[in-house]
Amino acid sequence: MKDIAFILYPGLTLLDLVGPLQVLNSMCERNPQFRTVVVGKDLDPVKVDVPLLLTPSATIQDIRSPSVVVVPGGAAGTIKAMGDEELLGYLKEVAESAEYVCSVCTGSLLLAAAGLLDGREATTHWGCSRILELLGAKYVRKRWVQDGKFFTSAGVSAGIDMALKLVSMQADEATARSVQLGIEYDPEPPFGRIKWREVDRNQLLPYLRTQIKNHLSDKPALISRLSDL
Amino acid sequence: MKDIAFILYPGLTLLDLVGPLQVLNSMCERNPQFRTVVVGKDLDPVKVDVPLLLTPSATIQDIRSPSVVVVPGGAAGTIKAMGDEELLGYLKEVAESAEYVCSVCTGSLLLAAAGLLDGREATTHWGCSRILELLGAKYVRKRWVQDGKFFTSAGVSAGIDMALKLVSMQADEATARSVQLGIEYDPEPPFGRIKWREVDRNQLLPYLRTQIKNHLSDKPALISRLSDL
Repeated sequence: MKDIAFILYPGLTLLDLVGPLQVLNSMCERNPQFRTVVVGKDLDPVKVDVPLLLTPSATIQDIRSPSVVVVPGGAAGTIKAMGDEELLGYLKEVAESAEYVCSVCTGSLLLAAAGLLDGREATTHWGCSRILELLGAKYVRKRWVQDGKFFTSAGVSAGIDMALKLVSMQADEATARSVQLGIEYDPEPPFGRIKWREVDRNQLLPYLRTQIKNHLSDKPALISRLSDL
Repeated sequence: MKDIAFILYPGLTLLDLVGPLQVLNSMCERNPQFRTVVVGKDLDPVKVDVPLLLTPSATIQDIRSPSVVVVPGGAAGTIKAMGDEELLGYLKEVAESAEYVCSVCTGSLLLAAAGLLDGREATTHWGCSRILELLGAKYVRKRWVQDGKFFTSAGVSAGIDMALKLVSMQADEATARSVQLGIEYDPEPPFGRIKWREVDRNQLLPYLRTQIKNHLSDKPALISRLSDL
């Protein structure tokens, strides 16, 4: 049995978790050698960024060698998690034996804070690329980026695209297409695509600086690495 | 304060709930006259179709006149819920005063089972259109369908598209675009769009017949309406 472990921590953006979880869980239904698990520090319910409490299915003590790890992102909750040494230690440990280490959105900042993306190509939410670079990764402006076993996706909904790609790599393309059909992923954004030329990619910096100041004040080494933000 | 109520019930497909919840919660962050609530029959944690327990933020006793109702779909869990008279009674009641009554995927089967879609245009997951028709709605093969206050979407991920449209109607198009940017919804399905010409839309019928037989055996009136499936 291969475990596909999704990391659950307080304040994460729920769609970062659930997009890939739905996709990879659908793969498990078609291919029972895989199993999805949602891993928390303990089994207590966790508050996320929408009005729901989520109870994980396993703890970081239970799942020591997952085949795939998926780290969701978020806003303030993820900045705070960048200072969570127990969580970062767990990511470092499971990354060693995992076949793929994946992140959605700002989940890549946690991988980078754990020292896992040093010198590697990676991506993140469009508004957070500078943090990723300050933490040692080479930011690439793509929907998803693979560098060795590290598989990072852009913001929130990009996790669905990345997860379908991952299904094709763990199973095959036919399975990925079958999962895509099952979740009827044939997108029709009502106002078309994002008009990137009109987007100021620095607009989140004041918010991010405040969050870093508020949540990482007891982590001087991290604060110092991010001082040029 | 306008409540946007998401219905939580056992066995639902989590992405049906979380896609629109993330989108509409993002609208609430930008426009605090709105609030999202996740409504269960009680506050007990609910099992869904992935390994997570979800605790709702309110009960059907608490939320009597939401402005918007969103009903997620699912597979076996939704077929079972079609026989849940307390849930259907709640949907009927809140539909009277709500401004919009929405469904994702097979959530429309619950609206139809509650008698809310009689003679109305509606949509559902591609594999379940025949059930929707047997329950009195006029199935339309679209990503989302509006008929009066009823707003139904196609399968699972279609709820994201519908919710962005709904944001433009509840707030404005600029807010919808801002939410779309926030969740970086600029889809790139790795294997392109669904090839509908290759899809057998009847392939789920044997599974659905079994689920109906297993879960609705104590609902002879419903079984009889679905006997031609």
